[in-house]
Amino acid sequence: MGYEELKIEGRNAVLEAFRSGKTIDKLYVLDGCQDGPVRTIVREARKHDTILNFVDKERLDQLSETKKHQGVIAVAAAYEYAEVEDILATAEAKGEPPFLFLLDNIEDPHNLGAIIRTANLCGAHGVIIPKRRAVGLTATVAKTSAGAINYTPVAKVTNLSATIKELKERGIWFVCADMGGTTMYDLDLKGPIGLVIGSEGEGVGKLVRENCDLVASIPMKGDIDSLNASVAAGVLAYEIVRQRMA
Amino acid sequence: MGYEELKIEGRNAVLEAFRSGKTIDKLYVLDGCQDGPVRTIVREARKHDTILNFVDKERLDQLSETKKHQGVIAVAAAYEYAEVEDILATAEAKGEPPFLFLLDNIEDPHNLGAIIRTANLCGAHGVIIPKRRAVGLTATVAKTSAGAINYTPVAKVTNLSATIKELKERGIWFVCADMGGTTMYDLDLKGPIGLVIGSEGEGVGKLVRENCDLVASIPMKGDIDSLNASVAAGVLAYEIVRQRMA
Repeated sequence: MGYEELKIEGRNAVLEAFRSGKTIDKLYVLDGCQDGPVRTIVREARKHDTILNFVDKERLDQLSETKKHQGVIAVAAAYEYAEVEDILATAEAKGEPPFLFLLDNIEDPHNLGAIIRTANLCGAHGVIIPKRRAVGLTATVAKTSAGAINYTPVAKVTNLSATIKELKERGIWFVCADMGGTTMYDLDLKGPIGLVIGSEGEGVGKLVRENCDLVASIPMKGDIDSLNASVAAGVLAYEIVRQRMA
Repeated sequence: MGYEELKIEGRNAVLEAFRSGKTIDKLYVLDGCQDGPVRTIVREARKHDTILNFVDKERLDQLSETKKHQGVIAVAAAYEYAEVEDILATAEAKGEPPFLFLLDNIEDPHNLGAIIRTANLCGAHGVIIPKRRAVGLTATVAKTSAGAINYTPVAKVTNLSATIKELKERGIWFVCADMGGTTMYDLDLKGPIGLVIGSEGEGVGKLVRENCDLVASIPMKGDIDSLNASVAAGVLAYEIVRQRMA
């Protein structure tokens, strides 16, 4: 697997990519283009929750590698996404209670890469990210993961809250990192667990937070508001590790 | 004391700089930008008699070092490094045993910024960095510190090993993060402590490591080698916090 994003250009190639089930992270479409094939592609993109960008011809020409984009360029993940079931199967195969990371709209590829790296090293079985409003598995993410992307499965889901509800029915507890929660040292974080980390700017979304069983706070003694998202993920993940080892 | 011009970029970082009382000589603002955070910054600038320059996007892009200026760039006349004595005095004034971070040649400004941010939030009294072969307090460091650079003193020393020796004579214990050490949960990390973090590529230098009292390991269960340096610093710092709170 390479570190490069895969660009798919031209109407047939892009439509074929959607129909084959390939994960398309982003679609660039010529703004104002209304003809049939392009509208079919936009419909497919909406169905798959692909991020849509309507851009002018100059931008498309600049993005194009083949110079034959016909008004559409799709950006596919360079890495294959896993399914949530694959992550649970990994835990089961190791005979361990599931330990998952769920990332609520992490936008910075350096943070996503560092978090996948941490997930790998702390023994988590996989990472779940939402399809919309979040960075995907780009070349920068792959690089900052220091190779962890090759080992730790990453699944993309349409609705993080819905996924949490489904997994709760299967016995997994969810703890989200947020201010105003219980100090993490005072929570019981053993057993099957999903660690939910919020976005850099806004933290964990309201609905996601409401679906969590526990809210964990990292003790803050300083003058500023919050830790970097990947540092916070690491600190909480290793409190889980400590409790599991005890 | 070091003396270099500091550009502060991005809305949070600029606003935090004004609010912390830092002297801002000049502020560049995107001409015509009317949204709330930018207007708040302009109001702060007027209150502090800062010279205001309304410029176009090209000019801001040209001035920007981080390329993430968000429409505002502040220029501070100088950034002052602290002395090691100032850091110890801060601990004494708070009636707390000293808690220091020592960074052995961190080269990535994002890592340095994130570590200063962590140092602030975990209640450390300051950060010590070497003069040579390490990144200094650049605009990128200031931005990724999320304002922590205004509160947490950073001292620059000629020789990290010599500084460790001097501080050991004053009763501070030094723990360095390295593979092959004792699992951090099994060490006594209470009392006056200096946490030594190695560089991204090479870890802690041989001489520095030999001068440390303890070598702490973070449990690693994955397939790759090591955590990101700022994540490792956060995980170890919060193990110290946990033991101090217990």
